[in-house]
Amino acid sequence: VTEAQVPAVSAATRAPASHLTTGRVGMVGAGQLARMTQRAAIDLGVHLEVLAASADDPAVTAGAGYRIGSPDDLDALRGLAADVDVVTLDHELVPNEHLRALVEAGHRVAPDPAALAFGQDKQHARRELAALGFPVPAFTTVSSGAEVAAFADGEGGGWPVVLKAARGGYDGRGVEVVVDAADADEVLRRGGTWIAEAHVDIATELAVVVARRPSGEAATYPVVETVQRDGICVELVLPARVDTEVARRAEALATDIVAAIDGTGIVATELFVTGSGELLVNELALRPHNSGHVTIEGAVTSQFHQHLRAVLDWPLGATDAVAPAAVMVNLLGGPAPTDLGARLPSALAIPGVAVHLYGKVSRPGRKIGHVTALGDDADEALERAREAASRLVDPQD
Amino acid sequence: VTEAQVPAVSAATRAPASHLTTGRVGMVGAGQLARMTQRAAIDLGVHLEVLAASADDPAVTAGAGYRIGSPDDLDALRGLAADVDVVTLDHELVPNEHLRALVEAGHRVAPDPAALAFGQDKQHARRELAALGFPVPAFTTVSSGAEVAAFADGEGGGWPVVLKAARGGYDGRGVEVVVDAADADEVLRRGGTWIAEAHVDIATELAVVVARRPSGEAATYPVVETVQRDGICVELVLPARVDTEVARRAEALATDIVAAIDGTGIVATELFVTGSGELLVNELALRPHNSGHVTIEGAVTSQFHQHLRAVLDWPLGATDAVAPAAVMVNLLGGPAPTDLGARLPSALAIPGVAVHLYGKVSRPGRKIGHVTALGDDADEALERAREAASRLVDPQD
Repeated sequence: VTEAQVPAVSAATRAPASHLTTGRVGMVGAGQLARMTQRAAIDLGVHLEVLAASADDPAVTAGAGYRIGSPDDLDALRGLAADVDVVTLDHELVPNEHLRALVEAGHRVAPDPAALAFGQDKQHARRELAALGFPVPAFTTVSSGAEVAAFADGEGGGWPVVLKAARGGYDGRGVEVVVDAADADEVLRRGGTWIAEAHVDIATELAVVVARRPSGEAATYPVVETVQRDGICVELVLPARVDTEVARRAEALATDIVAAIDGTGIVATELFVTGSGELLVNELALRPHNSGHVTIEGAVTSQFHQHLRAVLDWPLGATDAVAPAAVMVNLLGGPAPTDLGARLPSALAIPGVAVHLYGKVSRPGRKIGHVTALGDDADEALERAREAASRLVDPQD
Repeated sequence: VTEAQVPAVSAATRAPASHLTTGRVGMVGAGQLARMTQRAAIDLGVHLEVLAASADDPAVTAGAGYRIGSPDDLDALRGLAADVDVVTLDHELVPNEHLRALVEAGHRVAPDPAALAFGQDKQHARRELAALGFPVPAFTTVSSGAEVAAFADGEGGGWPVVLKAARGGYDGRGVEVVVDAADADEVLRRGGTWIAEAHVDIATELAVVVARRPSGEAATYPVVETVQRDGICVELVLPARVDTEVARRAEALATDIVAAIDGTGIVATELFVTGSGELLVNELALRPHNSGHVTIEGAVTSQFHQHLRAVLDWPLGATDAVAPAAVMVNLLGGPAPTDLGARLPSALAIPGVAVHLYGKVSRPGRKIGHVTALGDDADEALERAREAASRLVDPQD
């Protein structure tokens, strides 16, 4: 690193004097979740300080206080923790043992490392959730195609079987559907820990965003329906278009899980609804989550305001929806680079859409923003949000 | 200025690379209006660059790009204009001739200096609005108590008479109610240009926020009812609790005025409703305005997003309210300094309130934040917002 590459701004430069600040929150990572948290921090008079990979990161260009460093560097984490009231996360790619070291040193970390493990390790999450009595798809840890075949013959209920990398997967990466032992062997050759999971007959995918304070108060948002394509969330509808009884069960299940694992901050629970109406827990995310973006316009309190309130152990806000329907469509980078500045006006011409851009370089399939629309009817709102999105990004090939 | 006082951050440090930015807006002033504009700039991928008085200014601590300089310094304004697509304003205390110089040099300025004059000079505004046929209180320019007495005897309709400084007044400063010629003389001795205005029998005060693009498209928010105390807006209700017919007339009047003066960006029109239901124009503000703060939570598009869209000549957003009632209560600094960090949690315990803090040093009567609440009923929402406000700041003396 040459001197010119060292950011000229020390982290403290933008930090308001303490009497002008209501709290100081450190966030590991500076992506779009941190960027949208900065928006909420402005409202609440909170100083947000992010540990960024680069001064071009979305939260840095949005004006959060920052320092450059790696989440793998315990000293960088210690430095951040020393300057804030509580450390929280923009992503899960932080060594759990580093966060435990911060807790042991007396720093506040939200989520607690033990809870975070549910978002970091699918094997751990499946095992522990099953042990706690929560419904999960049939699963087992596998290390060979033969073991996957045995699972398919037994508990897995036949082929295909889903293989999931225990760690590091996101947005569809680390998830493979295999049809026989040879197919499975090919995936497992990549190394790492994999679990085999029954290929569930999914009728609908749901997500429930819950906020919880260290003191135990929790607030649950209405369940949202998510639409995935190639493992990436492409759009969602609040509230989910499912029976009221299913919605209530989903919200209760997520609320119970968050309490059981002692989650703090925002925790998103992704659920499958099977053809027979059964709910199964798919994944947990121990941070603000894509499925909660719709709360910025669609709920009384956004998940980002709520996350700050939760990690600072402040009273939580109302989670009620403000419209009969709120929808969100993700903006995924198209095959070619996109001039968002040139395209934005035409998207804004669609009535009643809110556009959120993340300040990220567009790459094919990368989440570079999202569009929200409110309405009386989900289908009508989706039509507008999709039209606005299509004016901003080109479809994937 | 010693070296240590010069901000270490050059203005460009936080500016994202141009391919990550949809537009660049320069704002003269870095107070709470610029701070709340930064929130909107994040969403839209806009780089906001403010001309700040100090690195502690509300928009700077919120993370806007900034440079330190005075609005009286034409070179500072030229420097800002050279780095952005359009220059706009956080306050009116910018020499009109400086803005004209920017326009003459080919820079885009919104509002146009000719329109801005309606917000800078009450004498000019009264004269021109009357000439355009818009209803204003009876007024005349005065330079002595005898002239004020003559006005009271004639068009003014008797004592008391209201004296208003043509320039520089805000939040009740520069407005005096006088009861006789001697009283008037005392005020006029302060110097400057003053207008005498009939003491109107005000039944209700209204404000209408209108956004207008250089290309002419305009969008009008539902009329709000403002409650003033000592000339400072203390709370407001959206929509105003007036007859539908009065509301429609107010909205049409404000929309017509903004078109007539060729206003661009957000223009707020303050109106008096007299006891007989007549509408009279009080003041214009050619920038985001206190009466529009309620649109952050209360309308589909906030006035700050709308201002950016308008000055960049992008399509405007929907102005519909998202709830039957939305109210705002200003936080005015109490007699003693306030530890907002210690008080905020108890305010957030009130259900369904949104708190906006400006990061400003608390001084008696100074606007340091506001609280918004949505509800089915304005009185019920006001009760919650007032309770939250009372937990954040102590009442004036």
